[in-house]
Amino acid sequence: MSSIILGVDPGSRITGFGLVRVGRGGHVEHITHGVIVMDTEAGFPERMMELGSAFRELMEKYQPHHVSIEKIFLGKNADSAFKLGHARGVVMYEAIRGGAQVFEYATRLVKKGVTGDGGASKEQVQAVLKALLRLQKIDRLDASDALAMACYHAYEVQKRQLVRRAVEL
Amino acid sequence: MSSIILGVDPGSRITGFGLVRVGRGGHVEHITHGVIVMDTEAGFPERMMELGSAFRELMEKYQPHHVSIEKIFLGKNADSAFKLGHARGVVMYEAIRGGAQVFEYATRLVKKGVTGDGGASKEQVQAVLKALLRLQKIDRLDASDALAMACYHAYEVQKRQLVRRAVEL
Repeated sequence: MSSIILGVDPGSRITGFGLVRVGRGGHVEHITHGVIVMDTEAGFPERMMELGSAFRELMEKYQPHHVSIEKIFLGKNADSAFKLGHARGVVMYEAIRGGAQVFEYATRLVKKGVTGDGGASKEQVQAVLKALLRLQKIDRLDASDALAMACYHAYEVQKRQLVRRAVEL
Repeated sequence: MSSIILGVDPGSRITGFGLVRVGRGGHVEHITHGVIVMDTEAGFPERMMELGSAFRELMEKYQPHHVSIEKIFLGKNADSAFKLGHARGVVMYEAIRGGAQVFEYATRLVKKGVTGDGGASKEQVQAVLKALLRLQKIDRLDASDALAMACYHAYEVQKRQLVRRAVEL
């Protein structure tokens, strides 16, 4: 049975998303990717509404089994983290409502897993993702970050299955 | 025409709500109040789902015209503000989805408007709200804070209408 993973890079103005399918034998295949761009002229509550509605459409269209979302650590800019919290809440809400399980991974971990370097730039992440998923191009850096979230989760699931199999042997 | 206002005191574990109706002549009448208590044993995304679903039921049942929500200023505890952001995002999303307009007021302003003192305790707010709305009791402090948000918005709307009328005269 193949499983569908939706990776998300949430933001209160732009939210990246990337969908992959994990086939039998663990092959990871690209489905689609893109960004949800909110109208910054609109009020903040209206932006949350735009985000939630667009994310809900994704959930309904692709019915992912798992949603992989960036785990946030509060940095210097608490104000932007606060706004980001709103966007993450909406994404989590619609993810679970849509029947998916939600997983959170720190960006550093995902970068390290995907590129081998926890401090890789967004451009490096994009280059590796293009190669991994055999894509001509990925339009936006937010979208490649989201695809990285999805792929990293795919590897995590496989790793856990391998460990389980090893224990059962 | 009477209008229905839903006041919300959002939290990532307990969210208070209070509904009032503003009749002709500006009379403010209590409809209901209460709290949405999330299962703290559940994961954070699941809690956001519980909150959103319960809030959505309120929106569908009472169809408020306006939602009045606490405006947050980031204090010392950035981590709890971050979690709170998620809850506010979900509330805003379902409020707009349910067809309401969203208004935000700082707690200090609401306390000052309702009790005359911006630094009033939650107990003082509750006592004033009980008198204002002729209630025997209000079960939870989160619910009286939410009712205060609703009532303050009702007064704000009336004030603006009075100003408009005065300008038109």
